[in-house]
Amino acid sequence: MTGADLHISDIDTPAVLIDLDRVEANLARGQRLADAAGLRLRPHVKTHKLPRFAQRQVALGAVGITAQKLGEAEAMADGGLADIFLPYNILGAAKLDRLAALHARVRLSVSADSAETVAGYAARFAGAAHPLTVLVECDTGAARCGVQDPAAAVALARAVAAAPGLAFGGLMTYPPRGRLAGTRDWLAAARDLLTDAGLPPPVISTGGTPDMARMAELAGVATEWRPGTYIYSDRMQAGWGHGTLADCALTVLTTVVSRPTPARAVLDAGSKALAADPVASGGHGHIVEHPAAVVAALSEEHAVVDLSAVPGPGPRIGDRLRVIPNHACVVSNLFDHVHLIRGERVEEVARVTSRGRLG
Amino acid sequence: MTGADLHISDIDTPAVLIDLDRVEANLARGQRLADAAGLRLRPHVKTHKLPRFAQRQVALGAVGITAQKLGEAEAMADGGLADIFLPYNILGAAKLDRLAALHARVRLSVSADSAETVAGYAARFAGAAHPLTVLVECDTGAARCGVQDPAAAVALARAVAAAPGLAFGGLMTYPPRGRLAGTRDWLAAARDLLTDAGLPPPVISTGGTPDMARMAELAGVATEWRPGTYIYSDRMQAGWGHGTLADCALTVLTTVVSRPTPARAVLDAGSKALAADPVASGGHGHIVEHPAAVVAALSEEHAVVDLSAVPGPGPRIGDRLRVIPNHACVVSNLFDHVHLIRGERVEEVARVTSRGRLG
Repeated sequence: MTGADLHISDIDTPAVLIDLDRVEANLARGQRLADAAGLRLRPHVKTHKLPRFAQRQVALGAVGITAQKLGEAEAMADGGLADIFLPYNILGAAKLDRLAALHARVRLSVSADSAETVAGYAARFAGAAHPLTVLVECDTGAARCGVQDPAAAVALARAVAAAPGLAFGGLMTYPPRGRLAGTRDWLAAARDLLTDAGLPPPVISTGGTPDMARMAELAGVATEWRPGTYIYSDRMQAGWGHGTLADCALTVLTTVVSRPTPARAVLDAGSKALAADPVASGGHGHIVEHPAAVVAALSEEHAVVDLSAVPGPGPRIGDRLRVIPNHACVVSNLFDHVHLIRGERVEEVARVTSRGRLG
Repeated sequence: MTGADLHISDIDTPAVLIDLDRVEANLARGQRLADAAGLRLRPHVKTHKLPRFAQRQVALGAVGITAQKLGEAEAMADGGLADIFLPYNILGAAKLDRLAALHARVRLSVSADSAETVAGYAARFAGAAHPLTVLVECDTGAARCGVQDPAAAVALARAVAAAPGLAFGGLMTYPPRGRLAGTRDWLAAARDLLTDAGLPPPVISTGGTPDMARMAELAGVATEWRPGTYIYSDRMQAGWGHGTLADCALTVLTTVVSRPTPARAVLDAGSKALAADPVASGGHGHIVEHPAAVVAALSEEHAVVDLSAVPGPGPRIGDRLRVIPNHACVVSNLFDHVHLIRGERVEEVARVTSRGRLG
């Protein structure tokens, strides 16, 4: 869908707007940070789910992309992306068959943090034309998935290397925010043990947008960074000190549908448009036109806004306001389409791929 | 899509399962409660977004349905529903045109809480073949939309009644949970003022699942109840005392993808499958097979489960677990399809209408 003469004022609400100039600035900044730190960039597409932006990330210098589920990876392969890392334990015959089909058409790598996951890959890829690259996932403090210590990483790497259809691809972690020294020490210890064991890790991959500006602290150990949210940024990232609200490229365009009291406005975007993901400072979004307003509560199709601190009479019924959400990645996942804008002009209405997909 | 020989074990994860026997029991119970209280039932379809269930609600005795946005209402009209209440301030030319098109094919009513909204309706429907029914929205304590006092309700009802293309349909409120006496007094006062003014309200509509068992407390004032979540129920409703977890008809089928420590499991459903809506007791869902487990954290495609209180070794990698989400209505909105099950058998895979739609 193209929008030759479409302006923001023509779009009905609620709708997602993506500011293309900010996207470009954010992508360029991320690549610059990676280049300066001597790390390769492998951006995470979970945030945007749009092959065009993944292509742009690669054109700017990324070595490939990261996808968080098979459906995302498949959509990216359909969109022409050729090098995809899927940092997930892929389990079960149905998903392993999809993985094999994907492996046949792109340069694919996956992760594992258990013997069970490795055994599944080994059985499915035993007769593959070329091996599946498997990175060992390491829990460096985020307490999600991952082997618990460097010795366990070595043991799992050995299992990968011993399987005929698999190739040991290195280490990956989703690191705890702000704790770079611990992540660095963990990964360095595992690297040294692996090297001693004759399995030097080809890739050591870490991620996360909040610590991008500190990537250099992991240089010499990590080889690759997988940031996702940096393309759009959001209220959560700005709260963590990653840029400012002025860098946020994704906004939700809303209409004021009610002004029940002098201190209250209600917008036509609720938890089904802004999502309920919390931030430490409270509130459910930042209203660009009224920075002192607080998005105090969400129901499914309404946001209740506290105008107590807003100077003057505040917005009127029918006014259109742009909201920076707490978490951009989950907002992308709530809409079938996003509007790509340049200034006030809508350049295109783009379909969001792979949302609503199982797995 | 039908699933003649499909079993739950054939479904890949994450996936939404809807237990049809529980749906039927929940719908029948809701209708019984309304009948016993002498109130008409007008169920809210935001929870399920499935015309088949809306049809079933009407077959069981509902006078019509409620939809929370135009897209939902349009999908329900497409699905054959003939009497739709849209309790929303519909603003702007694009939406008013869609409203007029809908008005031409179903028995439609809407709400308003401001002179601005009424003026928009009045201008658009001035020449309509039959009038648009408008209910005045009242803020009886929930602090969302709504006129602030009974006198303001009368003033707005007069504005509706004075517009050639509009008909005053009565009063509606989205009431504060648990505060039925205040809602009753508010509505009774408004009704009496309206009656004195020659505008007796034909309908007085209230809603909400949590207080359904107490509907009789509003009898004699309210005429209609608009519950939504009662069809599926969820962890939030059970926490508020609406039935128990055993009544919950919607579960998210997940797979254990990691067991990094003895006390931790990770599932393949995160905030993009379970949503981040909080409940007072904490946690992000109830695992049916391990009631003592705590869904402690969500990232986008992972749930981290604390097994500290679970007896025995807990689930293994590859095990499939069913999670009752905190809030069923937002989960429906995250998936393209839901699986309608009877026991362990999948009767049908149904497409969820109107999710991802703008407005």
